[in-house]
Amino acid sequence: MATHRLVPTTWHNVLGTVPPALTVADGDSVVTETIDAGGDDKHGVARWPGPNPMNGPIFVTGAEPGDALAVEIIRMTPIRENGWTRAVLAANVVDPERVRDLPPRDRADWIIDGAAGTVRLKEPVAGLEHLVLPLAPMIGCFGVAPSLGQAFSTATSAENGGNMDYRGFGPGTTAYFPVSVPGALFFLGDCHAIQGDGEIAGTGVETAMEVELRLSLRKGLKLGWPRGETEDTIFTVGNARPLDQALQHATTEMFDWLMADYGLSAVAASHLLGQVVRYEVGNVFDPAYTMVCKVEKRWLPRPVAR
Amino acid sequence: MATHRLVPTTWHNVLGTVPPALTVADGDSVVTETIDAGGDDKHGVARWPGPNPMNGPIFVTGAEPGDALAVEIIRMTPIRENGWTRAVLAANVVDPERVRDLPPRDRADWIIDGAAGTVRLKEPVAGLEHLVLPLAPMIGCFGVAPSLGQAFSTATSAENGGNMDYRGFGPGTTAYFPVSVPGALFFLGDCHAIQGDGEIAGTGVETAMEVELRLSLRKGLKLGWPRGETEDTIFTVGNARPLDQALQHATTEMFDWLMADYGLSAVAASHLLGQVVRYEVGNVFDPAYTMVCKVEKRWLPRPVAR
Amino acid sequence: MATHRLVPTTWHNVLGTVPPALTVADGDSVVTETIDAGGDDKHGVARWPGPNPMNGPIFVTGAEPGDALAVEIIRMTPIRENGWTRAVLAANVVDPERVRDLPPRDRADWIIDGAAGTVRLKEPVAGLEHLVLPLAPMIGCFGVAPSLGQAFSTATSAENGGNMDYRGFGPGTTAYFPVSVPGALFFLGDCHAIQGDGEIAGTGVETAMEVELRLSLRKGLKLGWPRGETEDTIFTVGNARPLDQALQHATTEMFDWLMADYGLSAVAASHLLGQVVRYEVGNVFDPAYTMVCKVEKRWLPRPVAR
Amino acid sequence: MATHRLVPTTWHNVLGTVPPALTVADGDSVVTETIDAGGDDKHGVARWPGPNPMNGPIFVTGAEPGDALAVEIIRMTPIRENGWTRAVLAANVVDPERVRDLPPRDRADWIIDGAAGTVRLKEPVAGLEHLVLPLAPMIGCFGVAPSLGQAFSTATSAENGGNMDYRGFGPGTTAYFPVSVPGALFFLGDCHAIQGDGEIAGTGVETAMEVELRLSLRKGLKLGWPRGETEDTIFTVGNARPLDQALQHATTEMFDWLMADYGLSAVAASHLLGQVVRYEVGNVFDPAYTMVCKVEKRWLPRPVAR
Repeated sequence: MATHRLVPTTWHNVLGTVPPALTVADGDSVVTETIDAGGDDKHGVARWPGPNPMNGPIFVTGAEPGDALAVEIIRMTPIRENGWTRAVLAANVVDPERVRDLPPRDRADWIIDGAAGTVRLKEPVAGLEHLVLPLAPMIGCFGVAPSLGQAFSTATSAENGGNMDYRGFGPGTTAYFPVSVPGALFFLGDCHAIQGDGEIAGTGVETAMEVELRLSLRKGLKLGWPRGETEDTIFTVGNARPLDQALQHATTEMFDWLMADYGLSAVAASHLLGQVVRYEVGNVFDPAYTMVCKVEKRWLPRPVAR
Repeated sequence: MATHRLVPTTWHNVLGTVPPALTVADGDSVVTETIDAGGDDKHGVARWPGPNPMNGPIFVTGAEPGDALAVEIIRMTPIRENGWTRAVLAANVVDPERVRDLPPRDRADWIIDGAAGTVRLKEPVAGLEHLVLPLAPMIGCFGVAPSLGQAFSTATSAENGGNMDYRGFGPGTTAYFPVSVPGALFFLGDCHAIQGDGEIAGTGVETAMEVELRLSLRKGLKLGWPRGETEDTIFTVGNARPLDQALQHATTEMFDWLMADYGLSAVAASHLLGQVVRYEVGNVFDPAYTMVCKVEKRWLPRPVAR
Repeated sequence: MATHRLVPTTWHNVLGTVPPALTVADGDSVVTETIDAGGDDKHGVARWPGPNPMNGPIFVTGAEPGDALAVEIIRMTPIRENGWTRAVLAANVVDPERVRDLPPRDRADWIIDGAAGTVRLKEPVAGLEHLVLPLAPMIGCFGVAPSLGQAFSTATSAENGGNMDYRGFGPGTTAYFPVSVPGALFFLGDCHAIQGDGEIAGTGVETAMEVELRLSLRKGLKLGWPRGETEDTIFTVGNARPLDQALQHATTEMFDWLMADYGLSAVAASHLLGQVVRYEVGNVFDPAYTMVCKVEKRWLPRPVAR
Repeated sequence: MATHRLVPTTWHNVLGTVPPALTVADGDSVVTETIDAGGDDKHGVARWPGPNPMNGPIFVTGAEPGDALAVEIIRMTPIRENGWTRAVLAANVVDPERVRDLPPRDRADWIIDGAAGTVRLKEPVAGLEHLVLPLAPMIGCFGVAPSLGQAFSTATSAENGGNMDYRGFGPGTTAYFPVSVPGALFFLGDCHAIQGDGEIAGTGVETAMEVELRLSLRKGLKLGWPRGETEDTIFTVGNARPLDQALQHATTEMFDWLMADYGLSAVAASHLLGQVVRYEVGNVFDPAYTMVCKVEKRWLPRPVAR
């Protein structure tokens, strides 16, 4: 199982069926440097227009429609000492009549100290003079080529992943995507040094990162929506508007997972989810909103043999 | 500051302006036994029809429109060794075409062991034979009389609180409600032994509880929506459909809170929320859905003098 | 079948169970003068605070829960030569980021010429100098007391009717409301000289009207939501957010109507609705939005005997 | 201005940037035969898999990003004597708990009589024995390639048009689409012999049609969303979920149109829309719902010179 280094010379603003930048085997690792959501690289040099330029795609040998691609996020290292955010809440997360009162959506700069593991505003803001946040790296946008020859802007998300902006997609998490084209065609980019739930300012702290991933296949594991796993939890992801529909997608996907892989009946899966489920909000800023449905592994029975 | 015992002889299926069952002073405590969501008491005797019969209302001397009522949840003790749930996910939390496949929404019985602090299914269900959940008491429905002489069913929620079914409303939390009528007229009931996010089976483990609360006033603290506080966090609650709108209400209320009480500008409040906000889902079953917007106190500046 | 004149001396800002202002028999007519949405009467004198002060309630002898109240709108005559509107679109009907650019929501005055049957702006506005609209009277808010002792603000709507702001509720239409309390307790007010779909400026041309209605009972006709009828059409009304849910309520109510009263199977009702249904938008401004589901009578089979 | 005949030998299930099947000049007409939503041609022969196979794309010489493509629908002639529908309402248009009771979504056959101008069920259904509907042809899915290299399934719709399923897109209507790629790349298909609002059975009467169109350019007419025009009306189209957001898009587009082309201020445009706007519902079945915002030309001032 080799480790590859992907050094992009071109980027993509859609997740779609385009020629691969790298081909890897099932189980290989990849190290790559991402540029930020606006297209600036680790030197602050503009390399590609936004939204969210993607590295890739990576062709995984043997991936076929009907498989799942497992993406283990091994490491995310900031490679720039600064990041940026929008300075004001997005219009769609406050009461509509209150939008009139919002200040302009300027950009703000942040300082990222990788050694100290901290993130803080560059210019002091009254009341936040002492705010020092923990570095909490996450991938804002990643996923695979969608079905049917579709291609989706990296500003949004769908069954194939994309711009989900979920802070749980950081080191220690394995994401699973439904493969729709040969080779899966995996894309990634748009890394954040930290981000609250919902990406409600319209950004996390946008920066450049070196990311190390392991890509492997789960043959024949048909997924309806992206899934994920950490040491302690399993989760599913729905991407849609309104949030109600994103929640329906995520809940249905978890319901199916519990029945197929853990051998639960519809009633048993309902009992379990009804009393232990947790929801987390990915983005509520992009065209499709993201809702995560999570269950702690300690409540799960032993998986059934497939 | 006295402690009162409220022993209801009648209950209410609305939160509205009705004659008080008890009058207390600012800062007094109340101990009361609630009946379950279906109206059965601690002996399993049917006492009142559903939905969610409420104890109260409690008139708090000195409460006036424009004040906030603080409700400190001191203790919740199960007073029945059993509870019940719906056995199947609610139709509105799965993909619509999948509703065709759901089994009937029967009732299931659960055993509550207050001494051991556990909750488990009464009848074994395949795959969940070993599921023993921690007792995690919460108040499903509580709040005050709404404005204008309105009266809302205890099946739903609004600016005045109501059936929010948020698992964070347990011991250690103080909830704040906007007072709209003299005396505030506080109601409570519908306690759960445990419940997952969203109340997605349509119930938590519904049971009877003895609840101890302290009721106190925050004079002139105008709230738009319910708020809450724990040792480590502050939070706000929006009740509406779709979830997107509930989230807008909760976010706007938090935004206002940060500006009014912590002296932050709109930009500073946006910076803070953008990177540290957490959302939690109350119910996604009732006519109004519930979204909670939460911030850890460790990120907050010192409150300004009011 | 008598004709009564109701001359209010007090008004209501909720639809709820309050003492009746008038008692009538099944089939009686009522003539009454309404005040405008802000509470000004035909002389422009402020009589009652908003929102939408209601005349009534009217107790209809013999009405019981499980009946429907038919409200035939016989005549609506403007009794004031002026009306008013908000001058700018409501924030919730434009794209959220565009709300920043909207001008302030001032009031504008309109001239109502009952003899000519016209409505026009009082102050000329560039580009609309020649705009003369037809008088098209409608009742913005009417309905009956809801179930359970609930009481709802006249700013919103629900199963019992309320502030639906549907321009189809004018002379020639009969509305049907589900009776939930003895006597039905019918309220009305908030008349408009004209209004576009959606009430997207937040008002129609708000004014005072003399309204003539006939109130009659349909014993045992259980409704889930308001219904209506004109010479050529039948329609149902759903009140909820988002519009998707209002549409679900209205469609389900029409589906039930076609099966119960016209003897259609679920498949036949689906065929008919699928190819001939029309939707119309009531308000998209109030807390609950309103969607109307309509079918032309020419497509309907003969009603079955009940 | 030539008339071209486009005889497809391949079809597309996405609207995207693919090689053109035909190149025409600004102002040229095109006659082409479409196959039905499931891919069957005028002989009932399966030619291409669904969803909604598209003829095209047609490259319009001179079309550049920032232009609008005008598509005048001149004629739609059924070329098959039968069509089909789904026999039951879609799950997402009825109340969720009611989905349990819906019968299976079988297919039903319809007879299309082009000479008589009628459409009727092939197999008699109780209560609908005498139902003979007027032929009312419309294009379910048409539009242009989207921006950024995106490609969208013909099951959904967006800023570039697509599967809007609006019954107003029939002969006599001119649709306008925002051009995002050189040549515009126009696609069409999925014609219906008749369809109610909302496409709530999930289909109209799906059939094959011969369609005659004229394609012309409006240079530099930047559109945010599709627009349309008939002899008496202008309209705009929003595609999104929930319907509330589709309505926001359509209303904002109309607001912009009135200000840019008719010289109205924001206040004047608000006055006009507030009192005369009409909304019509396109599909409420597909991933993106469709709302139409319409104004009658008789209310409009003279357009300003551009």
